[in-house]
Amino acid sequence: MDIIVLKPSATEEELKHITKKLESMGLRAQVSKGTERTILGVIGDTSKTTEEVENSVRAMPGVENTVRVLKPYKLASREFRKAPTVIKSRGVIIGGKKINVMAGPCSVENKAMMVDVAKKVKSAGADFIRGGAYKPRTSPYSFQGLGEEGLQYMAMAREKTGLPVVTELMDPRDMEVMEKYCDIIQIGARNMQNFRLLLEVGKSRKPVLLKRGLSATIKEWLMSAEYIMSQGNHDVIMCERGIRTFETATRNTLDLSAVPVLKSLTHLPVVVDPSHGVGYRHLVAPMAKAAIAAGADGLMIEVHPKPEEALSDGEQSLRPDEFKKLMKELQAVAHAVGREI
Amino acid sequence: MDIIVLKPSATEEELKHITKKLESMGLRAQVSKGTERTILGVIGDTSKTTEEVENSVRAMPGVENTVRVLKPYKLASREFRKAPTVIKSRGVIIGGKKINVMAGPCSVENKAMMVDVAKKVKSAGADFIRGGAYKPRTSPYSFQGLGEEGLQYMAMAREKTGLPVVTELMDPRDMEVMEKYCDIIQIGARNMQNFRLLLEVGKSRKPVLLKRGLSATIKEWLMSAEYIMSQGNHDVIMCERGIRTFETATRNTLDLSAVPVLKSLTHLPVVVDPSHGVGYRHLVAPMAKAAIAAGADGLMIEVHPKPEEALSDGEQSLRPDEFKKLMKELQAVAHAVGREI
Amino acid sequence: MDIIVLKPSATEEELKHITKKLESMGLRAQVSKGTERTILGVIGDTSKTTEEVENSVRAMPGVENTVRVLKPYKLASREFRKAPTVIKSRGVIIGGKKINVMAGPCSVENKAMMVDVAKKVKSAGADFIRGGAYKPRTSPYSFQGLGEEGLQYMAMAREKTGLPVVTELMDPRDMEVMEKYCDIIQIGARNMQNFRLLLEVGKSRKPVLLKRGLSATIKEWLMSAEYIMSQGNHDVIMCERGIRTFETATRNTLDLSAVPVLKSLTHLPVVVDPSHGVGYRHLVAPMAKAAIAAGADGLMIEVHPKPEEALSDGEQSLRPDEFKKLMKELQAVAHAVGREI
Amino acid sequence: MDIIVLKPSATEEELKHITKKLESMGLRAQVSKGTERTILGVIGDTSKTTEEVENSVRAMPGVENTVRVLKPYKLASREFRKAPTVIKSRGVIIGGKKINVMAGPCSVENKAMMVDVAKKVKSAGADFIRGGAYKPRTSPYSFQGLGEEGLQYMAMAREKTGLPVVTELMDPRDMEVMEKYCDIIQIGARNMQNFRLLLEVGKSRKPVLLKRGLSATIKEWLMSAEYIMSQGNHDVIMCERGIRTFETATRNTLDLSAVPVLKSLTHLPVVVDPSHGVGYRHLVAPMAKAAIAAGADGLMIEVHPKPEEALSDGEQSLRPDEFKKLMKELQAVAHAVGREI
Repeated sequence: MDIIVLKPSATEEELKHITKKLESMGLRAQVSKGTERTILGVIGDTSKTTEEVENSVRAMPGVENTVRVLKPYKLASREFRKAPTVIKSRGVIIGGKKINVMAGPCSVENKAMMVDVAKKVKSAGADFIRGGAYKPRTSPYSFQGLGEEGLQYMAMAREKTGLPVVTELMDPRDMEVMEKYCDIIQIGARNMQNFRLLLEVGKSRKPVLLKRGLSATIKEWLMSAEYIMSQGNHDVIMCERGIRTFETATRNTLDLSAVPVLKSLTHLPVVVDPSHGVGYRHLVAPMAKAAIAAGADGLMIEVHPKPEEALSDGEQSLRPDEFKKLMKELQAVAHAVGREI
Repeated sequence: MDIIVLKPSATEEELKHITKKLESMGLRAQVSKGTERTILGVIGDTSKTTEEVENSVRAMPGVENTVRVLKPYKLASREFRKAPTVIKSRGVIIGGKKINVMAGPCSVENKAMMVDVAKKVKSAGADFIRGGAYKPRTSPYSFQGLGEEGLQYMAMAREKTGLPVVTELMDPRDMEVMEKYCDIIQIGARNMQNFRLLLEVGKSRKPVLLKRGLSATIKEWLMSAEYIMSQGNHDVIMCERGIRTFETATRNTLDLSAVPVLKSLTHLPVVVDPSHGVGYRHLVAPMAKAAIAAGADGLMIEVHPKPEEALSDGEQSLRPDEFKKLMKELQAVAHAVGREI
Repeated sequence: MDIIVLKPSATEEELKHITKKLESMGLRAQVSKGTERTILGVIGDTSKTTEEVENSVRAMPGVENTVRVLKPYKLASREFRKAPTVIKSRGVIIGGKKINVMAGPCSVENKAMMVDVAKKVKSAGADFIRGGAYKPRTSPYSFQGLGEEGLQYMAMAREKTGLPVVTELMDPRDMEVMEKYCDIIQIGARNMQNFRLLLEVGKSRKPVLLKRGLSATIKEWLMSAEYIMSQGNHDVIMCERGIRTFETATRNTLDLSAVPVLKSLTHLPVVVDPSHGVGYRHLVAPMAKAAIAAGADGLMIEVHPKPEEALSDGEQSLRPDEFKKLMKELQAVAHAVGREI
Repeated sequence: MDIIVLKPSATEEELKHITKKLESMGLRAQVSKGTERTILGVIGDTSKTTEEVENSVRAMPGVENTVRVLKPYKLASREFRKAPTVIKSRGVIIGGKKINVMAGPCSVENKAMMVDVAKKVKSAGADFIRGGAYKPRTSPYSFQGLGEEGLQYMAMAREKTGLPVVTELMDPRDMEVMEKYCDIIQIGARNMQNFRLLLEVGKSRKPVLLKRGLSATIKEWLMSAEYIMSQGNHDVIMCERGIRTFETATRNTLDLSAVPVLKSLTHLPVVVDPSHGVGYRHLVAPMAKAAIAAGADGLMIEVHPKPEEALSDGEQSLRPDEFKKLMKELQAVAHAVGREI
């Protein structure tokens, strides 16, 4: 809260009451009496003004509204850290000149398939393997993932290919097993505001890939990054994966403008997941190219050897040969914007 | 999935491939060849068709789309149970003719305040006390609740007034302490799709008040109820608390049409939380009345002795005297629609 | 624009440049230098600050953002006129103690049906007949309304019943014929920001019923009312008819909180159209009751003698006997909130 | 309507009633009796089934829902015309290998400025000049455009540079003067469903640039193109300009996935307007690049000699030198995806 707008009917006494309250918090009010409204500019370190203080000021007699001008996040902001954050995972650098590609199936289904896909995406140029062992499903009757077994298969795939593993954590109680097998912990869209889970991964030393919530604003998303960072883990990767809109021709609406917006607001690297963003195979390639042109630091792409037999998200998964072809096409776009892939 | 729409370009062979796949699942396809499209009606117990089967069919060559006509939830549906579910908590009946009112502060702040509010809302006619001990806050720097201490204060307030306690659970690891103190477990809007948490409360024998997610559809919300019920706990209360829209004059947009929609789709009781729905004190009373007129079984209302000193949500909390006045006004509306309060 | 927030990097010279610009517009800046940002409170008659001035200030070097605290509408605001606006149409008063009901078919289909419905809704207690002669249809191949012929049938229905006529205008070129037949000119949701049409009805002396746009905020809606009022026609009725949300169980989401919000922001009467808001017959009655409980001054309800033969919106139209039953039930709710119907 | 889903409670008689109704429309029903629901596949030329027929079927006793599988638009669909539509305006080809750039100020402000900008954007490589003479403004008190005078200045700019003119039409009554001066008629986002205006430009022989409505789905947008085409004018250009979402960091959310979606659904060329899409100057360049990478056929970009003095949209306009630089950078991206610019 940096600005307090008074009601036209606010009395002198109410004004005094408010300025006193501010003073009790070590702040000072500069009063601007306009023809229609009196506005208070709050001076002092308002960055410490917590939400509850703002709420209580807003509930005081005479106050019409409060406006927050300053950003509510600190550690995640460009002001806090000018240089882009560069993260290392098993030797792979995220946030540098080279664009990272994380590829693999939606769900880990069995060992053979996992190792097979890993080899194929590696030979096509991917830097990470992705796959889900714990799956957030809308229906309790759907396949919920293989759990620890799935993590083991991913670790085996890593052993065979050298590619570090990105996988999703859904429950703080799985943290220990997660630390054992994975390299980058993914927080899914539906858990972007699962604050207890955020605090938990904030205590980990593994990088965290934080997906944007289905209807989250960029500010809320950065606040969730701040949750993680507030616990000491500064290796957060922002992952745009589409937001909910009225459009039904795509599964979600991939908000690529989030890429340059994040680049100006935060020092954290930005990855785009076109597979979940669009939901249909034939739309993945154009949006992957567009993501790079918009300035993304990485891509997360679903690849499945036989999409029509996938246990989840088959219709948005690329076949290995389609992925290979895409990787080649991406090179030209990456070079066009001064990046490598 | 009950209907499969083929692409105009689908071949006979692709059609055969699809019908074989259905047969392998114990289903049968009835083929309707139209002038522009061929459509398959799927016959057999499609209620068992899980999401993944639907996904894989959608990924088959020749398939343009699949349509799900049947409801994906079972236990929560009116078809499963015609009579309205009536829930009992310490002798108070939810889902009967009497409309229940759950009232209290947003956060439990201290013992004296908690007991004081409980007494006041009781004397005004409330049936439950509400209050938050674990608080989901957008900022890691905001007040996060008193934790177990807060639960203890609520239990004391119950002791003094006899009112059962409704409070929010955020983390499956807090389940044990929760069971000790509270009567109805609340799942907050941000956790509506925290599936692990839903499974956890599904194993409890306490009723669960399930708030609607910020941008959830009613179908998704009922799927979350289904998650809880699938574990054996059928005492779920649906709580509408506003959805996110473009409107900024209110904190959220209270979707009162969800009340009659739920009444036709499910047997579960429906409660409305106008305080979070609108976010401003002066809008709470008209929307509480409207909720009852729309057919709600209960209301959840924030009451705070001194809203301007509240640690959270002060601007939407009623003062005890305002609450008392509202309770009286609600009586007339309840009678007008054949209910009691 | 009432507050200007400078970038952290803003120079003294840039600040001078901005204050000079303000002075050239007869305004004055009060500078608040905070620890992180400098904020300017703009003093003077900022109500005259047009959008373009705000835009150009926002484009000046050193400016991060501008905040508008004051309302951009004047004539429509409570501040401009404290007492509620009361509108008269052929002797019927809108905005008084009595709640007005406007009822009739979606489209005027033929003379006999129009007269028949008018008689039935009148005997049930309606105050106005509604019906569409010009129909905004999503498809060019759908029934577009009977045009002037439809207006004539409505006029005949008025002759037989005495009920004044509400009907929609879509094109400024139909204004003349409209003035001849109708009593209240309706501006449909899709035309809420058809600014030329708004200017046109602003020159009429007939009251205007202004429907809310599908994704309009209340502020934008009031700005559209301001467009009409700016031309001299102050008889504007605000009509909430549902906004677009992610929910698919209803045609739109009826935003009943718009009723008390409008009541606090404007002196104009507020009418609710539950038929379009929900889109299904069985949801109309509970939402009509809720609208009255929320404080609406009127209702617009679709009634059709044979909904299954309606040329449009059949599934949301009440049958005459259903309407009659509803009118009775509404009485109890109206009395419960101190109104008549 | 191609599929009719019956209620579980539907009787044989109701089923007969429905099939008879279909037969009366020259259609035939194929009945699929499932274990839970009976589903009717409608056979025959359902493409003629208008909205009103669908509505009335949905209102029949025994019907739960109807599903439309086929596209409601014909002339705009890929099925109607396989080859991409190529449009010519004064010798400039839209929809070919070369990406077109339409550049100029938001509003035409005066002659000198208009000619100056036109020269500058031409020398930077633009193919069209854009500018608004009729401006849709949220406030009646904002600058509404110069009207015909503005059109004259644009025509002069065309004379000096040879660049054809794109400008917005707001009112059918301005059609005549529009035909006199402009080359491509723009329909703005707020008028995407101003159906009378669509019919009017459908009778023109000038190409129409149709902007997407603020909360329109792609299907609705294509239906608006169908409105224009149904009158004989097949030269429609689809222009994505951002949709309304919850995000506030950008003015709108530019939906670039609309580009490949449109490419698969329609033969019409697709242009992207990143300036309105993002609303801030520093975000225009990355999104312009992304639009090309996604497959856009053209770009519409706001350029103003002195954005801080612009009468509208200054904060999103590029300076001529910024535009020049961008045009160069776009070349590399265009080549990377096999296009020219």
